[in-house]
Amino acid sequence: MTETRFSAFDHHCMARALRLAERGTYTTRPNPMVGCVITQGEETVGEGWHQKAGEPHAEVFALQAAGERARGATAYVTLEPCAHTGRTGPCAEALVAAGVARVVAAMRDPFAQVDGAGFDRLRAAGIIVQSRLMEAQARRLNRGFLSRVERGRPWMRVKLATSLDGRTAMANGDSKWISGEASRRDVMRWRARAGAILTGAGTVLADDPSLTVRFGDDTAFEPPLRVVLDPGLATVARGNVRQGEAPTLYVHTADAKPPRDADVQRVVAPATGSNFDLKAVLELLAGRGINEVHAEAGATLAGAFIAAGLADEVLLYVAPVLLGDQARPLFGGLGIQTMADRLKLEIVDSRMIGEDHRLLLQPAR
Amino acid sequence: MTETRFSAFDHHCMARALRLAERGTYTTRPNPMVGCVITQGEETVGEGWHQKAGEPHAEVFALQAAGERARGATAYVTLEPCAHTGRTGPCAEALVAAGVARVVAAMRDPFAQVDGAGFDRLRAAGIIVQSRLMEAQARRLNRGFLSRVERGRPWMRVKLATSLDGRTAMANGDSKWISGEASRRDVMRWRARAGAILTGAGTVLADDPSLTVRFGDDTAFEPPLRVVLDPGLATVARGNVRQGEAPTLYVHTADAKPPRDADVQRVVAPATGSNFDLKAVLELLAGRGINEVHAEAGATLAGAFIAAGLADEVLLYVAPVLLGDQARPLFGGLGIQTMADRLKLEIVDSRMIGEDHRLLLQPAR
Repeated sequence: MTETRFSAFDHHCMARALRLAERGTYTTRPNPMVGCVITQGEETVGEGWHQKAGEPHAEVFALQAAGERARGATAYVTLEPCAHTGRTGPCAEALVAAGVARVVAAMRDPFAQVDGAGFDRLRAAGIIVQSRLMEAQARRLNRGFLSRVERGRPWMRVKLATSLDGRTAMANGDSKWISGEASRRDVMRWRARAGAILTGAGTVLADDPSLTVRFGDDTAFEPPLRVVLDPGLATVARGNVRQGEAPTLYVHTADAKPPRDADVQRVVAPATGSNFDLKAVLELLAGRGINEVHAEAGATLAGAFIAAGLADEVLLYVAPVLLGDQARPLFGGLGIQTMADRLKLEIVDSRMIGEDHRLLLQPAR
Repeated sequence: MTETRFSAFDHHCMARALRLAERGTYTTRPNPMVGCVITQGEETVGEGWHQKAGEPHAEVFALQAAGERARGATAYVTLEPCAHTGRTGPCAEALVAAGVARVVAAMRDPFAQVDGAGFDRLRAAGIIVQSRLMEAQARRLNRGFLSRVERGRPWMRVKLATSLDGRTAMANGDSKWISGEASRRDVMRWRARAGAILTGAGTVLADDPSLTVRFGDDTAFEPPLRVVLDPGLATVARGNVRQGEAPTLYVHTADAKPPRDADVQRVVAPATGSNFDLKAVLELLAGRGINEVHAEAGATLAGAFIAAGLADEVLLYVAPVLLGDQARPLFGGLGIQTMADRLKLEIVDSRMIGEDHRLLLQPAR
């Protein structure tokens, strides 16, 4: 495809479509978030976004809103329209049937059943097709879906709360509450966008977290799967992580004695001793349709994901307190001996959340 | 004084005067920074700021610029005009002589030789005097001067560079360079505004810092006094801290053997063993006209200032790297055992400096 020049109005419409797509953040998985804007000249005649897997796609809502005015229109979509019949009919067909003249997409859909077939179908019907408008933003939006489809593992986020001096808990294990109430509310949004919230058996034993989404209002969301890495299934019978309506999956080693409770969802993952092959664990979750994993674990498991190069982003809440050098470290087992070994990250976002400071980091390129 | 209502224009003029005052940040000490704006109606007819101790005050420059148009004018000053003859004549007299009709000040000058006498002189001459317009901003501007005059000790800033996981150096002591080039340039501005840059003998031995201001351009500044806390005068003969044109002062205990080198500036401070009474050290520096101390010390000395409640602000450069739990901690000796003992701070400013993140913190109120 030769380079396409897009107008300021094209950018405006795609930015709007991306914002519409974002509305599906808590509900579309395992599907990608998609937004669609349909215009006649400089007038918007239809808008839509994908709301929930199994329900109509963004294009269908936008075409419904546009009605007859879709004929000869331009459709802006944040992802290539699908060409296959899944739980809903193919969107490419719907765009053709509505008589749209031009389709501008932010990116091709790498999903095997689409992967260019949507564009081909549109072109075959004589529609002008242009792609890669605001592609970086569209990729960022669906980094979870794209990670699963392209890398075979979910996008992996490690969330941690720390003091200014890099401590997560007192020597006695007390960690309530390092971060403030606003940060704890903010974490709910990050949990809700993930397909799975992951922790380790040690955290279940020490902190007994429920790992559920509690918005405190009527925001719609799909309860994320709770995943406990528990080599020996030591925690399977206990804890808040089994309470509530969200499902819970225990990942254990082949040596673990299966629990008597037949209701326990569990799966065996490869391990060396009690150390899981974390890449295999992630691949296993991708196989279950998990786009994005949000880990809230202790220093050792968090450090293991980072040391293995499997953490795609680190979400760090820094509380303006000092806990002193007797308190517990942020990460364990990084195995860094010299300055040359240091792990370099990049600050992607930095902002105040209540009295705390929040950093979003990614491994430095 | 009854509450005075100030107009939007009053605020505008005082904000301008405060910005003018700031221009003296690197040069006015031990004097406070002061700015002055003179207006006729809504027209500015004169501006000035205090540039250097021993040279004319802000009001004099502004009156010179206004000339005859000062008659009947309003003068906005960020600090009460002086009433005493120091190295320059009293500004209150100059304002009276110029025929100014109204003086608006941001705050009273607590300095013993002023402390209301400037306002009294103006009122005695029939000038309308109003004070406390944008007082909080004016106090913040001169927090160093005010600390020295009101508390008898300098404003104390502890600067540290840390990794995300709260580490300042590797186990082998290597700390070059945790923070990036932009942060190291930024530190120069903070050094330059301080009357003294303080460190400990341990840092001199380990890192051999020069503790000078190196702007790399022609920005004017007064070289800050370098202060080394060296109980036994172990480092007095060596190091970059003795090089360059800035003066260096060694603070030592009464037991230390005086050096042969007669050029060494030194002073005895009270101590228990080799642990200085840090409050006494600060008071001693205030006695030498130091408004603001900028400490670049190791984890132990930095921790000691914080543990003693003597750190008025912490300037923290957080580099987006991980150094691991074998690396050296940010602070030593805080003696925190339980979560209830944690030291609470407040984030006053938060911003990116190059690839690093900079936090300015103060003890929580």
